Amino acid sequence: MVKLVLVRHGQSEWNEKNLFTGWVDCRLSDVGKKEAARAGELLKEAGIKADILYTSKLSRAIQTANIALDHADQLFVPVKRSWRLNERHYGALQGKDKAQTLETYGQEKFQIWRRSFDVPPPTIEDDSEFSQVGDVRYSDVDPAVLPKTESLKLVIDRLLPYWQDEISADLLAGKTVLVAAHGNSLRALVKHLDKISDEEIAGLNIPTGIPLVYELDEKLQPTKPAYYLDPEAAAAGAAAVAAQGSKK
Amino acid sequence: MVKLVLVRHGQSEWNEKNLFTGWVDCRLSDVGKKEAARAGELLKEAGIKADILYTSKLSRAIQTANIALDHADQLFVPVKRSWRLNERHYGALQGKDKAQTLETYGQEKFQIWRRSFDVPPPTIEDDSEFSQVGDVRYSDVDPAVLPKTESLKLVIDRLLPYWQDEISADLLAGKTVLVAAHGNSLRALVKHLDKISDEEIAGLNIPTGIPLVYELDEKLQPTKPAYYLDPEAAAAGAAAVAAQGSKK
Repeated sequence: MVKLVLVRHGQSEWNEKNLFTGWVDCRLSDVGKKEAARAGELLKEAGIKADILYTSKLSRAIQTANIALDHADQLFVPVKRSWRLNERHYGALQGKDKAQTLETYGQEKFQIWRRSFDVPPPTIEDDSEFSQVGDVRYSDVDPAVLPKTESLKLVIDRLLPYWQDEISADLLAGKTVLVAAHGNSLRALVKHLDKISDEEIAGLNIPTGIPLVYELDEKLQPTKPAYYLDPEAAAAGAAAVAAQGSKK
Repeated sequence: MVKLVLVRHGQSEWNEKNLFTGWVDCRLSDVGKKEAARAGELLKEAGIKADILYTSKLSRAIQTANIALDHADQLFVPVKRSWRLNERHYGALQGKDKAQTLETYGQEKFQIWRRSFDVPPPTIEDDSEFSQVGDVRYSDVDPAVLPKTESLKLVIDRLLPYWQDEISADLLAGKTVLVAAHGNSLRALVKHLDKISDEEIAGLNIPTGIPLVYELDEKLQPTKPAYYLDPEAAAAGAAAVAAQGSKK
């Protein structure tokens, strides 16, 4: 049995401002830093010792991991980072105010872009200030594969090869793996692990800053339902995320 | 021409308390965190973009790197960590008060252990609370190679294979390499790069928190003398480190 532990980053400066973020590299807010510290304390209390850390290439996930491992006394853990763990690319919506987007495009389009499984928002223009074309952090990746917008389906498509080749290899070697990432990249991973249908996945809300633990067998199948290290806070957090989605 | 940038971690909680630290994993003090932030700002001002980060396995070097890269807007940089970049193992002196050690053993022995090239302090006992035997962070290393005391010579012996195979490979691939490490592991590297003699190396004091930049040719030889990103602060810092060594 091996352990896979997922942590969704907490509040960022743009969450606070109610902007669509996606691949824009904003930082954690002070609230988000506290959430990360709490995640580290939960790992420590649970006695979970990571053998390897995976993060996206985005600062808010990396900050979350750095702060959590600091609080868990595990700063020395080896690290791998990949764009394949990044948040969903929000296309032309990146950098836009959520309330204003809702007003401009109407409730129907807004909800489709936010919650449909396979309809991506409009593509971002290369010359947008919120485009990642030419961003040095992706300079080691085939430019043709880097997204300019994504549905959740496209997130799954680009995440799975990394799961299959990299994360799985460490789990199959018996390592405890910690993944610090984002609402939609973790949703993609949970969908895969728990075999959630395309229809149901939109209803899954992963709370921020609370480690979610999978115990997997030698075929990387869950041996029991995944559990949060603080189940009460997780339930409250998931409800808060869901409420946020329906309000705005 | 490629760039190699060395950063020595700043004040730790044990520096503050005047204890021999070595491989004991104490954290940065608040002063040390500010030094790390300043290192990041200097990197940013100089326009240095790291392609890869190397750290030791010790929290104070990792914290320094995390804070510096945060302030340099480069959190996404890939990371490799190795015990071979650790501080010198101080043997039985680890955890001991420096002033008290001086009193117990006398000036002569004290200075030999601190500054001789090849005389290590007495070996630490495995059951000492300051021993690293069984420490999970070294569980992937042949236990026979892990030191129980070290002279600077022994630090060089264990550092060089890592320099030759790992750090050199990244430099030869044209990458800008950032190394966050310790007074003695960086001294070992500087000795190698600048061909400093065994006799002279004890007189070399690397200031904390100020990036030291090497520009290297295709044979990894310096094309000009290495330079600090803040030369005035570096001179003052080196003098302070030297004064500390002679006082205590």
